[in-house]
Amino acid sequence: MIKQFCLYTLFFSTLAFGESDPLPSWNEGAVKKAVVEFVKRTTDPSSLNCVAPDARIATFDQDGTLWVSHPMYAQVVYCFDRVPTLIKEKPELANVEPFKTVLSRNREAIAKLSTDDLLKILAATLSGMSTEEFQSEVKSWLDTGRHPRWNRPYTELSYKPMIELLQYLRANGYKTYIVTGGGQDFVRVYAQQVYGIPPEQVVGSMGGISYVYDKNGKPVLIKDPKLLLNDNNAGKPEGIHMMIGRRPYAAFGNSTGDRQMLEYTKAGDGQRLAMLVMHDDAEREYAYGPAQGLPDTKVGTFTQALYDEAKKNGWIVISMKEDWKQIFAFDEAK
Amino acid sequence: MIKQFCLYTLFFSTLAFGESDPLPSWNEGAVKKAVVEFVKRTTDPSSLNCVAPDARIATFDQDGTLWVSHPMYAQVVYCFDRVPTLIKEKPELANVEPFKTVLSRNREAIAKLSTDDLLKILAATLSGMSTEEFQSEVKSWLDTGRHPRWNRPYTELSYKPMIELLQYLRANGYKTYIVTGGGQDFVRVYAQQVYGIPPEQVVGSMGGISYVYDKNGKPVLIKDPKLLLNDNNAGKPEGIHMMIGRRPYAAFGNSTGDRQMLEYTKAGDGQRLAMLVMHDDAEREYAYGPAQGLPDTKVGTFTQALYDEAKKNGWIVISMKEDWKQIFAFDEAK
Repeated sequence: MIKQFCLYTLFFSTLAFGESDPLPSWNEGAVKKAVVEFVKRTTDPSSLNCVAPDARIATFDQDGTLWVSHPMYAQVVYCFDRVPTLIKEKPELANVEPFKTVLSRNREAIAKLSTDDLLKILAATLSGMSTEEFQSEVKSWLDTGRHPRWNRPYTELSYKPMIELLQYLRANGYKTYIVTGGGQDFVRVYAQQVYGIPPEQVVGSMGGISYVYDKNGKPVLIKDPKLLLNDNNAGKPEGIHMMIGRRPYAAFGNSTGDRQMLEYTKAGDGQRLAMLVMHDDAEREYAYGPAQGLPDTKVGTFTQALYDEAKKNGWIVISMKEDWKQIFAFDEAK
Repeated sequence: MIKQFCLYTLFFSTLAFGESDPLPSWNEGAVKKAVVEFVKRTTDPSSLNCVAPDARIATFDQDGTLWVSHPMYAQVVYCFDRVPTLIKEKPELANVEPFKTVLSRNREAIAKLSTDDLLKILAATLSGMSTEEFQSEVKSWLDTGRHPRWNRPYTELSYKPMIELLQYLRANGYKTYIVTGGGQDFVRVYAQQVYGIPPEQVVGSMGGISYVYDKNGKPVLIKDPKLLLNDNNAGKPEGIHMMIGRRPYAAFGNSTGDRQMLEYTKAGDGQRLAMLVMHDDAEREYAYGPAQGLPDTKVGTFTQALYDEAKKNGWIVISMKEDWKQIFAFDEAK
């Protein structure tokens, strides 16, 4: 039985790639080899660790793992950008903190906002509208918003090697999921376009939803400020259980918020792959840790403890500088 | 673009079925015709209402829609059956209501338990263990538990016409989901075996989950008694948004708990299908409503108001007596 479905996979994957390199943006070396060997071992019919196609689940963190998250998470920029519109709808908030500070455009004061203040801004700008209104607002923002460094839409800032990895896994029968600390509804708006991942395969932080009727009597789903799942840290394996119901065979992250997802993945039997993207390339992208002496950050922290745990447990650290030949699709022009 | 993927579907569905009847357990008539026409209209390339394959979502209630729910929901029977084991682990509950009544085996007293009492029994028997322990407990119960009327495993009590319908929709590119008021983790244990539906396509009532470490330091997910989503009534479209992120094109139910799911489905544009299974065949299964003068019930109530709403809004009522040639796979022997 096992052999039969693995033969099918072999046939399919040969068809899809022939002899060509499925990961052309990855430099040759131990990291690329580990990925290819994992895929072979879990899909090759002669392998004792061949995994049934319907159990081939791979989960990817998004910010910092699949696309750029510095200097600030795209979704947080979106929320700040929404504050003026929010004030038009609720003028009474204009003199209430932290909205007053955001409206002031005083960068220094904004940078000093506390986590509680940030959560207030997120809750206020991500709730109160219907799910359909929210989708259309995010779409409009994605059309016009530009990353401050590259002056390109955020949707162009995905990492080419990771897009190749998603496609390579899918071509080998893996179902690819995003498991993000970001808002599930936010990431769903562009996940199909950017990553080829449909809405039902995006697991993220979730707010409550209320089924009510609009003024025309049409049923709508309204986004509530109540947090149902904080899909970070222990929330990642919890969200994976809720939304997928089985343990991944491969998991990819870049920060301490992904630790439990990788731990949970590796705690399964057979071959499991856990990888962490390390941002050590200030020239082509950003450099931050503070692991391995990289500059410290609050956005996607990769601690030395996480690095040491990865090395101890056989989680593979991807050096963007060493392991990636190319970072963005638009780099090709260079 | 639309035409291209619809041609693919046409090719695939012709391959799969040739000229044979995809719904042999359904009697010819308006109901069967409505199903076939819906599928043709949403998959035929010459149809203005052809739906992109990745948007083809169909949602099915489980109890009373896909399998027998009388005289009592299988999961409630499971919870009652678990009480003695629970008492072994927590002997202090033996003299506490409602557990004392359940242990008494006094049928009359048990039948009188309030909804609050039932919820206490459900919370106590469905939480406190790891997700893996729970799966193995449910599996064991399914192996030995028998339905009181047919003396067969519950897993044999799915409706053959509905299994054909699931297969017919899938052969036409639809992704089939269960959207059940029952426990998501409970239904996931047998959904693949009984319905061909994988765990990630089961949406149900959800309890909290905690990621903790067992005595060997291994990470486990423990089921909490806290209810995150009551996947009934308005909870069904809310659960559909959380877990799927888009509106179904077809939805199937059998009781007032499914009303909002059908309403939400039909509120979408283009062709949408909403169907309700009416239990009007006491001889081959059960008869209950109280719609259309059928006996009243608390288990899967189908009110006259729901029946009238269905007729008014073009939701199709399936009469088990008139529309189904055969109800169970084991009826074939007759």
